[in-house]
Amino acid sequence: MTRLATQTAPDEAASKAVTLVDCDIHPVMLPAETSRRLSARWRRHLERYGRRSPHITDTYPRPRNQGMRADAWPEGGVPGSDLALLQHQLLDEHDIDFGILLALHGSDGYDPPELMAELNRAVNDWLVEAWLDRDDRLRASLCVPHDQPALAVAEIERRASDGRFVQVLFPASAQEPLGARKYWPIYEAAAAHGLPVAIHTGGYYAHRGTGWPSFYLEEHAGYGTIMQLALTSLVCEGALAAIPDLKLVLTEGGAAWAAALRWRLDEAWSLLHDETPLLERPPSEYISEQVWFDTQPIEEPDDPAHFMDIIQQADLTDRLMFATDYPHWDFDSPTQTLPRGVPKELREKIFAGTACDLYGLPRTRDAG
Amino acid sequence: MTRLATQTAPDEAASKAVTLVDCDIHPVMLPAETSRRLSARWRRHLERYGRRSPHITDTYPRPRNQGMRADAWPEGGVPGSDLALLQHQLLDEHDIDFGILLALHGSDGYDPPELMAELNRAVNDWLVEAWLDRDDRLRASLCVPHDQPALAVAEIERRASDGRFVQVLFPASAQEPLGARKYWPIYEAAAAHGLPVAIHTGGYYAHRGTGWPSFYLEEHAGYGTIMQLALTSLVCEGALAAIPDLKLVLTEGGAAWAAALRWRLDEAWSLLHDETPLLERPPSEYISEQVWFDTQPIEEPDDPAHFMDIIQQADLTDRLMFATDYPHWDFDSPTQTLPRGVPKELREKIFAGTACDLYGLPRTRDAG
Repeated sequence: MTRLATQTAPDEAASKAVTLVDCDIHPVMLPAETSRRLSARWRRHLERYGRRSPHITDTYPRPRNQGMRADAWPEGGVPGSDLALLQHQLLDEHDIDFGILLALHGSDGYDPPELMAELNRAVNDWLVEAWLDRDDRLRASLCVPHDQPALAVAEIERRASDGRFVQVLFPASAQEPLGARKYWPIYEAAAAHGLPVAIHTGGYYAHRGTGWPSFYLEEHAGYGTIMQLALTSLVCEGALAAIPDLKLVLTEGGAAWAAALRWRLDEAWSLLHDETPLLERPPSEYISEQVWFDTQPIEEPDDPAHFMDIIQQADLTDRLMFATDYPHWDFDSPTQTLPRGVPKELREKIFAGTACDLYGLPRTRDAG
Repeated sequence: MTRLATQTAPDEAASKAVTLVDCDIHPVMLPAETSRRLSARWRRHLERYGRRSPHITDTYPRPRNQGMRADAWPEGGVPGSDLALLQHQLLDEHDIDFGILLALHGSDGYDPPELMAELNRAVNDWLVEAWLDRDDRLRASLCVPHDQPALAVAEIERRASDGRFVQVLFPASAQEPLGARKYWPIYEAAAAHGLPVAIHTGGYYAHRGTGWPSFYLEEHAGYGTIMQLALTSLVCEGALAAIPDLKLVLTEGGAAWAAALRWRLDEAWSLLHDETPLLERPPSEYISEQVWFDTQPIEEPDDPAHFMDIIQQADLTDRLMFATDYPHWDFDSPTQTLPRGVPKELREKIFAGTACDLYGLPRTRDAG
């Protein structure tokens, strides 16, 4: 659907129905931007010592172009750093009504607590000034120093009144398993403000479990496996049960695996529930009620009918949300994301309806 | 089916059709048995220093009775240590035609290389004398010091002529990812002797990936996730492609997850195959041809029809084999393993046919 099509009838020119929400867009802050937003103390620290962990794009193998779409490099910048190019290539090109930004700079790395706090505050300031204030189609994920819960909660409290921050960002692996009691204050603060927690693939420790792979292929196919470890921990440690308003959005980790995981968890719980009194109901019920999934990179069965099987088996009808992963190389265009045979009503939910409900986005917007 | 039923016709008394093979039975060697089979040098070492890693049953949380069936404790021993009780409770009780032993003592722990070699040799000697020589229904998995490939290969060469060792045992996590080139000599030696490699849940490092969980529930539900990491590594590093005669048996890791993993791998490979020239075909083809799965603990969908969906989606028709996991607490009886609605032909394959084909077991045996 092009924007033109919605403008043919004069009455509809003022507003259009929201039909496409992109739930995973990665903006990139250039080092000079970071530096000028830090206090002198931590700017000096970075100049002298650098960061304890290199940025994710330096440590992970990448297929090409630092893992970016070849056409996404603005002149003199890096992909995701230029609003005009992102508007042109993504929002306008695909007529995206709302796009949710996930800046990955803050969650990666294990630097001193106050530096992590300043870095995340700087990223959030930059998200407001360079993106949210300049295009009303954009929303953002709040970056927090996730391994310093007190500082993370302070950042949530500082920003929660800005409704353009629609969720809190968390990496798929951290210093401790994601369900650990340590992180509950962050989840509680997010839930108290009605903010889902988006768990994004990655985190510096993601591969310590098996050692590092030789090929990017393994890392890429492993995103869905790392995400299963994260969700299993969040369920079994009781975080979902203890914080019923906590909502999780699993981004860039696939979704088809959720069916088998639900069965494993329910079967084990049926035998072991005396061990975990926090879990009063079968684990799959918490997943059905409190967990959403982004489509990119959704598993693609050979047989399109299997896609609908999975929707049913994993109870995903109201839980799957479209995402492009722009500007990364494995960008999903809305025309290619879903297989044949997905009913119209479900397509509409995946492309916009479910995200509008979860994030409280309006169902119509200015036709622009 | 009771043994009596097959004996009603006199002509059939001499032999009966093989209808039930149990692919995962855990015998346990008592410490005194281990000690007397070690050389004086390593016996002294164990007395003075113990083992570097405690045995798996000491380090893992367990639901009760050290994770054993409450009725499986022989007088003065531990579950799995007594042939007569195992014959009574398992082989005779369920009329099992063949049972495959997996002794987990050897693969766990990181002690000095020569001690690991002696320990595994002792376990294999004990398997022959205490089990294989005393019941012709039993077969065994060859224990090897998996993180010392040269010593592991020597043990394979020493035992390969004894056809009662039907596979080589490997833990689901080791010092390096399971696909690492380091382990290929073991896989090559197994393949050269026509022995599948059985990857069993566990291994001392299984949870370093996310840190240790608080509850056994998470560990139990995580078996299937750890197994996905192992299989992903074996596929992506090219071990299956480079060693086409290598056959893997994934034990105690479930199977339903294989559908989503196949889709993830094939999708990533379609975009990245120039990175991994060893993988000439979509990864799922290597899995279909070279990977088998044990049923215990098979995922149990709420809707039995979903079980058949998964068989089809993951191409498991000829790849799934029955297992009880005796004497562990989550023992699966043959009457409870499969949901309603599994066709007779498929049931026969799962309960006996596929294992007979893979392990070269006879299709009939003495009615005894």
